[in-house]
Amino acid sequence: MAAPLLLRNCRPLGGAATDILMAATRIAAIGPGLEAPPGAGEEDAAGLLLLPGLVEGHTHLDKTLWGMGWWRSEVGPLLIDRIEGERASRRGGFDAAGQSARLARDFLARGTTRIRSFADVDTEIGTAHADALVALRETLRGTLDIQVVAFPQSGLLVRPGTLALLEQALRNGADIVGGLDPSGIDRDPKGHLDAVFGLSEKHGKPLDIHLHEPGELGAFALELTVERTKALGMQGRVVVSHGFCLGEVARAPALYAALAEAGIAVATTAPPSRPVPSVRAMRAAGGRIFGGNDGIRDTWTPYNTPDMLQRAMLIGLKNEFRRDDEIAWALDCVTGWAAAACGFSGHGLAVGDRADLVLVAAETVAEAVVAQPPRRLVVSHGRVVARDGALLG
Amino acid sequence: MAAPLLLRNCRPLGGAATDILMAATRIAAIGPGLEAPPGAGEEDAAGLLLLPGLVEGHTHLDKTLWGMGWWRSEVGPLLIDRIEGERASRRGGFDAAGQSARLARDFLARGTTRIRSFADVDTEIGTAHADALVALRETLRGTLDIQVVAFPQSGLLVRPGTLALLEQALRNGADIVGGLDPSGIDRDPKGHLDAVFGLSEKHGKPLDIHLHEPGELGAFALELTVERTKALGMQGRVVVSHGFCLGEVARAPALYAALAEAGIAVATTAPPSRPVPSVRAMRAAGGRIFGGNDGIRDTWTPYNTPDMLQRAMLIGLKNEFRRDDEIAWALDCVTGWAAAACGFSGHGLAVGDRADLVLVAAETVAEAVVAQPPRRLVVSHGRVVARDGALLG
Repeated sequence: MAAPLLLRNCRPLGGAATDILMAATRIAAIGPGLEAPPGAGEEDAAGLLLLPGLVEGHTHLDKTLWGMGWWRSEVGPLLIDRIEGERASRRGGFDAAGQSARLARDFLARGTTRIRSFADVDTEIGTAHADALVALRETLRGTLDIQVVAFPQSGLLVRPGTLALLEQALRNGADIVGGLDPSGIDRDPKGHLDAVFGLSEKHGKPLDIHLHEPGELGAFALELTVERTKALGMQGRVVVSHGFCLGEVARAPALYAALAEAGIAVATTAPPSRPVPSVRAMRAAGGRIFGGNDGIRDTWTPYNTPDMLQRAMLIGLKNEFRRDDEIAWALDCVTGWAAAACGFSGHGLAVGDRADLVLVAAETVAEAVVAQPPRRLVVSHGRVVARDGALLG
Repeated sequence: MAAPLLLRNCRPLGGAATDILMAATRIAAIGPGLEAPPGAGEEDAAGLLLLPGLVEGHTHLDKTLWGMGWWRSEVGPLLIDRIEGERASRRGGFDAAGQSARLARDFLARGTTRIRSFADVDTEIGTAHADALVALRETLRGTLDIQVVAFPQSGLLVRPGTLALLEQALRNGADIVGGLDPSGIDRDPKGHLDAVFGLSEKHGKPLDIHLHEPGELGAFALELTVERTKALGMQGRVVVSHGFCLGEVARAPALYAALAEAGIAVATTAPPSRPVPSVRAMRAAGGRIFGGNDGIRDTWTPYNTPDMLQRAMLIGLKNEFRRDDEIAWALDCVTGWAAAACGFSGHGLAVGDRADLVLVAAETVAEAVVAQPPRRLVVSHGRVVARDGALLG
């Protein structure tokens, strides 16, 4: 157990300067002029802006080429080109465990203390990536929370044997069942969704479905997902990732309402290149929406970084958030809203919340989002874990 | 005249390492193992990636709040809200000259050596902003090129007196005539376009028209612009900025072809939040397209930075450029293509081109675009002007 830590003179979310006392991994007290208990460490925040620990709600740690030499992309434009290109690239040998750990550490150095990561499960690599992420989760326990989604990236029903491997990954410790484009990849929306919901129910695990399918095809998959979520009582335990169809079909308002009523959250990466779910519309419907990077510098895309403030900026730009009160929602997408939707408990800046804190040189939350200043200090579980962008120890 | 400068061991656009000799503001020789002439300065690039000087093709230096305290935005959602909000904010006093200079310097520190900037001209501020930018252009001559566009931000015909002020700004030294939403703001597409083309013709100045108008309304304005460009023989001297309608109407292919045939270039800021002109489609039609930030941290938007590599990333994301050869086009949008479309001469990395060079720690052009590494060295007109992001002298 770390010694208590007193952070002096910080401005939570740009509010008035105050002190924060942390003890036993939690925020113990907040207020100006707090006394440091005996043996406590002390840090002077010098009036910097304080953010809660950042949350990555949708990424693929096991795919990243981050920190390796540059990989020249000559991949074709189709989804299946990318899936097959990636599988082919791995046959030359790829250290998914080492790369996942490298990227996770760089997330932490930039203030992210909770990550939901997918791990590919297929008939070539089996459960190796999922197992590696489960091992990483255990290694980092107490410093960085990782949720592992067993994810059938290369298809489920179209690739016989994958369903059994997904189940094995869950037995090996994966936290969440992943689904993928039930019509577009698996060619059987009912069959695919029955299979992944069945696995969720059998193992008592939440579900996260990647839905890239466009227009009415995607909307149909959403409807099937809503029906099953309600029938199985899985409200609050299902996420639909991407959901591009919500940015496309005229009847999106009814779909937002149905998702909200079924307690299904939407994860958005807010790609500039295509229509996406609207943060404003999903919130107005009473539903949950949050953010993630998707892949970071991998064979799918060279873009993105392990910095959730850059993702917040892209969410803000995509949703045309210009006012300060709107830009604060972009931060919510990578902090509290993501934590709530993914089921990461104890997130926040109130007494009793886990002491995960980030200090940046910014006047306001909006400035932190648009400028993404370096992380001066990152605290996780009440311990200082990074300073000026570099991990300690 | 600066002494000759020999840059050793740089990799132009990621190619093989070579040396570059600069003399009398130009690139004098390129090749491995060059000899430094007597009196020449020398720099060791240590194998870093070499880019040509970056080009900002569309910004508003005179509006920026960059480097000032944070301005809390509570502005409404309409275009007219933003125009009026900005005019109101200026009544409290705003140092357009000082702010323009501050932002221009930060552009230079990040490797931009050529800027096309709009300057608001209206019946409240008169020609003051345009005059300030003309003065800045002269101050920076020989270090950073600035083109000044006299721009009727608050409307031209709807605000009587503005046309005479635009003309006065040209007499005072502005380089280019600006136009703005002939239907949406001025309510008279024929009248507005006749007025700005007339001014261009009378003064022999190029034209840059901001066209936010959606769908068929915007397409109609494009057609009127094409007709006038051809009738007046102004091919190669007209830019349409934004042109969102090109991302919206089904007949866009015919419009790209008409723009290409009339020698009209398109400036895009590639905003994630709405459809935009396609870089791929405009190039395939044989036309010119290039990039710019638009406003940088002003009352219109808090986003954007004086870093053209960030803009290139956003152009790449918007156009879904994933392959290395595609991402190189995103760099072209903020280098050679922008220089050619704006009429900045001598841009490039060949012998005889002006010696404007940028060094970054990246393996490839694509890495420079996605990662936007700090600028290790910036050379303008053959002189080192910035190191590690800081201007010299």
